[in-house]
Amino acid sequence: MTTSTATIDLNADLGEGLGSWSMGDDLALLDIVTSANVACAFHAGDPSIMRTVTSAAAERGVAIGAHVAYRDLHGFGRRFIDMEPEALRDEVLYQIGALETFAQRAGTTVAYCKPHGALYNTIAQHPEQAGAVAEALREFRPGLPVLGLPGSVWLEAAAAAGLTPVGEAFADRVYTPEGSLVSRREGGSVLHDAQVISQRCVSMATGQGIEDHRGGTLVLEARSICVHGDTPGAVEIARAVRDALDAAGVTVRPFATA
Amino acid sequence: MTTSTATIDLNADLGEGLGSWSMGDDLALLDIVTSANVACAFHAGDPSIMRTVTSAAAERGVAIGAHVAYRDLHGFGRRFIDMEPEALRDEVLYQIGALETFAQRAGTTVAYCKPHGALYNTIAQHPEQAGAVAEALREFRPGLPVLGLPGSVWLEAAAAAGLTPVGEAFADRVYTPEGSLVSRREGGSVLHDAQVISQRCVSMATGQGIEDHRGGTLVLEARSICVHGDTPGAVEIARAVRDALDAAGVTVRPFATA
Amino acid sequence: MTTSTATIDLNADLGEGLGSWSMGDDLALLDIVTSANVACAFHAGDPSIMRTVTSAAAERGVAIGAHVAYRDLHGFGRRFIDMEPEALRDEVLYQIGALETFAQRAGTTVAYCKPHGALYNTIAQHPEQAGAVAEALREFRPGLPVLGLPGSVWLEAAAAAGLTPVGEAFADRVYTPEGSLVSRREGGSVLHDAQVISQRCVSMATGQGIEDHRGGTLVLEARSICVHGDTPGAVEIARAVRDALDAAGVTVRPFATA
Amino acid sequence: MTTSTATIDLNADLGEGLGSWSMGDDLALLDIVTSANVACAFHAGDPSIMRTVTSAAAERGVAIGAHVAYRDLHGFGRRFIDMEPEALRDEVLYQIGALETFAQRAGTTVAYCKPHGALYNTIAQHPEQAGAVAEALREFRPGLPVLGLPGSVWLEAAAAAGLTPVGEAFADRVYTPEGSLVSRREGGSVLHDAQVISQRCVSMATGQGIEDHRGGTLVLEARSICVHGDTPGAVEIARAVRDALDAAGVTVRPFATA
Repeated sequence: MTTSTATIDLNADLGEGLGSWSMGDDLALLDIVTSANVACAFHAGDPSIMRTVTSAAAERGVAIGAHVAYRDLHGFGRRFIDMEPEALRDEVLYQIGALETFAQRAGTTVAYCKPHGALYNTIAQHPEQAGAVAEALREFRPGLPVLGLPGSVWLEAAAAAGLTPVGEAFADRVYTPEGSLVSRREGGSVLHDAQVISQRCVSMATGQGIEDHRGGTLVLEARSICVHGDTPGAVEIARAVRDALDAAGVTVRPFATA
Repeated sequence: MTTSTATIDLNADLGEGLGSWSMGDDLALLDIVTSANVACAFHAGDPSIMRTVTSAAAERGVAIGAHVAYRDLHGFGRRFIDMEPEALRDEVLYQIGALETFAQRAGTTVAYCKPHGALYNTIAQHPEQAGAVAEALREFRPGLPVLGLPGSVWLEAAAAAGLTPVGEAFADRVYTPEGSLVSRREGGSVLHDAQVISQRCVSMATGQGIEDHRGGTLVLEARSICVHGDTPGAVEIARAVRDALDAAGVTVRPFATA
Repeated sequence: MTTSTATIDLNADLGEGLGSWSMGDDLALLDIVTSANVACAFHAGDPSIMRTVTSAAAERGVAIGAHVAYRDLHGFGRRFIDMEPEALRDEVLYQIGALETFAQRAGTTVAYCKPHGALYNTIAQHPEQAGAVAEALREFRPGLPVLGLPGSVWLEAAAAAGLTPVGEAFADRVYTPEGSLVSRREGGSVLHDAQVISQRCVSMATGQGIEDHRGGTLVLEARSICVHGDTPGAVEIARAVRDALDAAGVTVRPFATA
Repeated sequence: MTTSTATIDLNADLGEGLGSWSMGDDLALLDIVTSANVACAFHAGDPSIMRTVTSAAAERGVAIGAHVAYRDLHGFGRRFIDMEPEALRDEVLYQIGALETFAQRAGTTVAYCKPHGALYNTIAQHPEQAGAVAEALREFRPGLPVLGLPGSVWLEAAAAAGLTPVGEAFADRVYTPEGSLVSRREGGSVLHDAQVISQRCVSMATGQGIEDHRGGTLVLEARSICVHGDTPGAVEIARAVRDALDAAGVTVRPFATA
């Protein structure tokens, strides 16, 4: 049996409770993934949760990423807000700055940024808001790695600002032949079978193609794969993905280092 | 004429607008004071205001302090909130971390901390909350200078946590013989005459006594004097204080350096 | 077998999710209790949850109560906030007014008020804040029934304001001989055995005494019993209480009618 | 001299402070206008301000309108938020319900609704959000009068929901020949001369045409004219408009009655 020389990162959203409300199983995920997208208290999370998650991530060698978002606790950051770019820039800088302090307290640093929810989707196509986020992150740290959709306006803006763009894939989503995500509204666009998902992730990690929704073969340029953890079943799928990657000899490690 | 060798700092609360609402004249104050207590968006302020104020302060060589507060926009941070110390600690760390990023962007760093409003008053007497704030600031930076009432529980807790306690005086307030503030509810406890206030500030800065409310002489151990700026008249008083200090040959400079 | 002529109300806190975060099983509780303390979006809840809960309550003939609270999503309304009485009064009126609109839409009206968490505990002893809440409710509707601790400052203030004070008991809490709650910090102060709890509730409902924590017998003047529902086990206990009351021939019905 | 039989309403945004922050001169405006668009604490305002403004309006016979908005204190309600229509509907109902309680306390009732800022602009063109707002207002009170741009999607949706659509004009804005507002970004689109503005308002109120930005004559179907009050100069213009209408014999009175 040949051992793969492939490496991949697994990322997940963490720290998305708020006060008395919980969301997902952070500790279970931290034993599976290698990069933690930590909520910064604008769409979810609060300072005490940020402390807990950054400490637990640092103890496990999981890279800490800033999961910056629109100011929207009521909509969980899933609502587009038509902000002036300057205001968005400043809110992003505020969030990553706050998280950095918790990361430093835990003996590490914020290693990357992945915008959340509606902000993620907006800047994939919206040059002004993409540029505002990129500007904030450049101010925070030139060259900072950022996650996004391969080929998106966001990763282009990030590159133009001197950041380090990194493409990610989604473990449980179906793609078009062009590499876009098939809308969640279409039947079959989200996969639920742990074995199917795991096998696709191994293919992605080893540079092989996955089947697109027209039956063709698609090779994604992704150095990180996003898994979910906000339901018990999701944690089991994430666990299966990690086990399959380990079994295939893929090195699972952070794409960005502190 | 003898030139004084005395030095003093002048501090004021700045950046206390919110979105479309303004409060005070930040730029006028920044030409008068040497330390800016910058709101961190919990009782007032927002990320764009934080950017503007930290930039303007840095340009003028005014030291930037974190004006941390209870989460209370509706009460302007003037309401005591009976928080668990751990939650308070984490909220303080979050605030100063966010501000630090704006200070760094402006080419400097947060030089000190001065808790705001109800938090200031509470930790002057409340050991658990005082300890929580001190712990957060120690996590942020061991030895950080902090402002407070001379002799307060807060400055004791700060010293115990390895911070650098610094006493401050209030330009326009009347004191008891023991060095406590006479309650605002008592008539005559707040001074309004610019000349009287200025002369007291010169006395404080040069180590001379001021008159207490019983007619005795009180020497305050204060390395910084707090002036106000949230009304037009207040700015004029602050200007008069600064002019009087300059005229008396007192060196007015930040008590803490970045 | 003798059928009891006793009547009692069961109340529970409902609608305490927020956006994407859930809390408790509202629908399960609505099939058990006769009065729903509906969160008004200050400590928990949001307008869409308020719509859902008021509709479901109205369909089942469950009385709708305003679960008014301090403005404190991050602390779930469990933190005392030292507000000016006038501001507290206005915030209470705002909350109950908003809920009333949802109740009217569901074909009914807000039947009573039960303050939540830290506000409940504060006004049990704090005359100014108790008076402020009572004043708001009198402005909303003279004579409005309100729940509280028997003998509390709150129920006295409510009576003085012309409201209708109603004492409540807690199904799972241990009492002192004087009828006060034994602090949660003391071991054994919260009961967990469904059968024990159910039997105590039947005793309360039928005017018999329950055992206090010194072993004596205590008769509580309570027209409503509060049960919890924020954990799966809690729902089962609430179900057991309701079944035991039904089996004992106690009529379980709202203490206040719309 | 012929006395006009014309009637018109003047409306203005009021109650737009927040806690310690003020905005505009509410009392000055209340002596000029006949309809007060009262902020409901989502974009501005708070419960104590709502009490003060509704009381002052009721004392003067000024009609109280609900100035409902997106949940956006930081953006003053000027940012479009891409909410689900159901969530928007529920937030609008919550706001108008809260205001109604203050209106009732003042001896009156909410007489109409005028959406604010970005919500106003969005529903002028966005059928789903327009329908959501209309649905909420129909639930609040069938037939409720609502203000909006003549010919807008919003007024059509309002009519379809059984509300009473009422067109309004802006005192200080320039119009296209089709009756649309010339964008604020175009030079000369906002008028500043009190005499010019006053004369246009008299023309609008008396059914005469005003000059459009191409030099033609435009007759607007407006039963209310919006004036501003958030700057000292704005209050003077509003005063001039009112005086000119009074001098022309126009009856200035609320378009909607409680």
